[in-house]
Amino acid sequence: MNILLKDIKKIYSPAENLSEYKHIEIDGKNIKNIIKDDSKIKNDYDKVIDCSNMVAMPGLINTHTHSSMSLLRGFADDFKLDKWLNDNIWPAEAQLTEEDIYWGAMLAVVEMIKTGTTAFADMYFQMDQVAQVVKKCGIRGILSEGLIEENDGLGGLNASVDFALRWQDKAEGRIKTTLGPHSPYTCSADYLEKIRDKAVQNDLLIHIHISETADEISFMDDKYGLSTVELFDKINLFDAKVIAPHCVHLTDNDIDILADKNVGVAYNPASNMKLSSGIAPIKKLLDKGINVSYGTDSAASNNNLDLIEEARMGSYLQKVATNDPTVLPIEENIKMLTKNGANTLGIKQLGEIKEGYLADIILINIKDQVHQYPSYNYLSNIFYAGNGNDVDTVIVNGEIIMENRNLTKIDEQEVYDKIEQLTQKFC
Amino acid sequence: MNILLKDIKKIYSPAENLSEYKHIEIDGKNIKNIIKDDSKIKNDYDKVIDCSNMVAMPGLINTHTHSSMSLLRGFADDFKLDKWLNDNIWPAEAQLTEEDIYWGAMLAVVEMIKTGTTAFADMYFQMDQVAQVVKKCGIRGILSEGLIEENDGLGGLNASVDFALRWQDKAEGRIKTTLGPHSPYTCSADYLEKIRDKAVQNDLLIHIHISETADEISFMDDKYGLSTVELFDKINLFDAKVIAPHCVHLTDNDIDILADKNVGVAYNPASNMKLSSGIAPIKKLLDKGINVSYGTDSAASNNNLDLIEEARMGSYLQKVATNDPTVLPIEENIKMLTKNGANTLGIKQLGEIKEGYLADIILINIKDQVHQYPSYNYLSNIFYAGNGNDVDTVIVNGEIIMENRNLTKIDEQEVYDKIEQLTQKFC
Repeated sequence: MNILLKDIKKIYSPAENLSEYKHIEIDGKNIKNIIKDDSKIKNDYDKVIDCSNMVAMPGLINTHTHSSMSLLRGFADDFKLDKWLNDNIWPAEAQLTEEDIYWGAMLAVVEMIKTGTTAFADMYFQMDQVAQVVKKCGIRGILSEGLIEENDGLGGLNASVDFALRWQDKAEGRIKTTLGPHSPYTCSADYLEKIRDKAVQNDLLIHIHISETADEISFMDDKYGLSTVELFDKINLFDAKVIAPHCVHLTDNDIDILADKNVGVAYNPASNMKLSSGIAPIKKLLDKGINVSYGTDSAASNNNLDLIEEARMGSYLQKVATNDPTVLPIEENIKMLTKNGANTLGIKQLGEIKEGYLADIILINIKDQVHQYPSYNYLSNIFYAGNGNDVDTVIVNGEIIMENRNLTKIDEQEVYDKIEQLTQKFC
Repeated sequence: MNILLKDIKKIYSPAENLSEYKHIEIDGKNIKNIIKDDSKIKNDYDKVIDCSNMVAMPGLINTHTHSSMSLLRGFADDFKLDKWLNDNIWPAEAQLTEEDIYWGAMLAVVEMIKTGTTAFADMYFQMDQVAQVVKKCGIRGILSEGLIEENDGLGGLNASVDFALRWQDKAEGRIKTTLGPHSPYTCSADYLEKIRDKAVQNDLLIHIHISETADEISFMDDKYGLSTVELFDKINLFDAKVIAPHCVHLTDNDIDILADKNVGVAYNPASNMKLSSGIAPIKKLLDKGINVSYGTDSAASNNNLDLIEEARMGSYLQKVATNDPTVLPIEENIKMLTKNGANTLGIKQLGEIKEGYLADIILINIKDQVHQYPSYNYLSNIFYAGNGNDVDTVIVNGEIIMENRNLTKIDEQEVYDKIEQLTQKFC
């Protein structure tokens, strides 16, 4: 399908200045042309979208979530972490069926699309269900079957490799797969080495929680006399490309290792704040040249998947934590949400509005909401005053999956009805 | 006018358990009955609103803002405070006309109503304009003419008392007035004493910035050898009832004084984070029994006036700052947004859903947005996953000022057009 995004009020892409450009041509999965002059527009597009009230930018990328946990949004709040997990989340998770996983992921995907997310990195279990959701809904998913050594062992590892190979590049290339060892406190060094080997052999990324809490750091110190990052370095886990959510508790040496090994960090401010995990040293990471992107973690600990709200909170938190209001300015925040997200996930030709790049584009309405006025700076209004509800249209892989806030591939009401029905058992 | 709010999904009020109640009768300005049994409903209401998809709760109260500064939203971001003020905000403010003040306040009031705020405490200049806006728009305004000694002197003080007395209880009682000395670094102890006398003589509250930044504290130490709170205590400023925005940098002694003098604190987390002012010790204040409410500060430093987003950020910030996720749980946060707000402003019979209380009520839609699912806990979904866009209907003083997100007393498009026209001079 050929689409013309016409008369765009502002095209924003992190790497290039596109202020003089007005139109974007999409051909199949890709961005074909970014056009300055009206005379270069053709007459034979399959679809033309009037963007005169829109900012066009790369789709937002969520580099860490557990989508099916949207089924547990609002189920347990304001608890200490151990009580939250032991008395609430884990007992509920033990009851989750394949159907729950499917519809929980569906609920998450509805929310992500409606708030401008075009790609997400997911880690959970029964991930075939999530892959089916991604296949159906048109979003881009980077999926991993979570591994907890005690539960999954070598059989689970093999099954997760099988999952990864079966789904790699499926759904018109929208699905990528990774391995997903849960954490250094649920997977031993031995087990992690086996996972590393599988990852390297099969050219798979590893998505693993790193240094989320002070408790993790003390566990690691007791067990290994090393920090999480030091252990991973010692066992050459970073021979694989690693997606590292959280990275809250880091030493300067940890940061040097992350920089040296080109680890992609996923910053999850809302979840880290709500669970009192701590404040990740994002400025230090960026100063060392580390690729930092945004994750939402799950809706059970956030409690939404709105990356625009996430990035506002993330930026403001860094400003107050560093005592420097110039930290994480708007453009850097947007880069983290887009280009850095693509880098973290190892997907080339994603995260920018650029000829030849994948056509993952969002259109944000800058006329309909009071917080969009006055219009000195559209990006400030979108990212410092707005939220995901301002996203009007979402295109992934050249396909329109939301237009005028209507999802084209999902019946929203069916999802809500199904969720209400499935969650009866937890009420 | 008699209004029936019928078949309410959930009525929430901070002080009482209303879980068995289903309907609210409004008569004139007040809540007349809260009804459990359908048989108690009459047949002759002027207006009946179907609330079967709604949570009803007291209107949200913003205890510190500068409404007209919405005209400067997105005008200058990511600057150090001195550069932000000296090179950006103050030069722009010097150009503001009465017309700018009027329409800036109008833009703010549109945003506040659309996000569920029913009362706001404002401090700025040319406040007759703001009073006219409040009068027209149906919201409740607690207004003060800001005083900076060097600019305003005694003449300004007298004019601000005149403003206060002229507008006190006007607009069907929706307008209250206070005195508004800007801060201890723009008003001397001498000047503050004169303001105190005027406040006490005329039974007016004082609205004054307190302990916002570390720079303020060092200024106070240099000039007086006292903290801001200590100086105010020494000069008996607290003989008047004081609205105290910020209170970021406080000693334990300061906190004891604030508790002893019954000062109402306005917590402004977004602005304090964005400007790197610091993190107010809210848990300590609450533990001492201090009445803490929420303010947004202005849209120039926030950058929105959405109290639902403000309270989410405020709660999460306290959880991470205290390393305790049980701090500021949902119900306490709602109390701060409502009942504590009314206490801060000294308005009795406000901030609760209670028979005889002022009918300032908001209805929040819990069916139309993806983040409202699943529905284990409506309050969690509203305050931890949602934002002000979920507010459907707003009633102030018994009058419906927004219904189905349509403002009944303001032409939104006219406001936006006017704002775009007036802000041309700053572009």
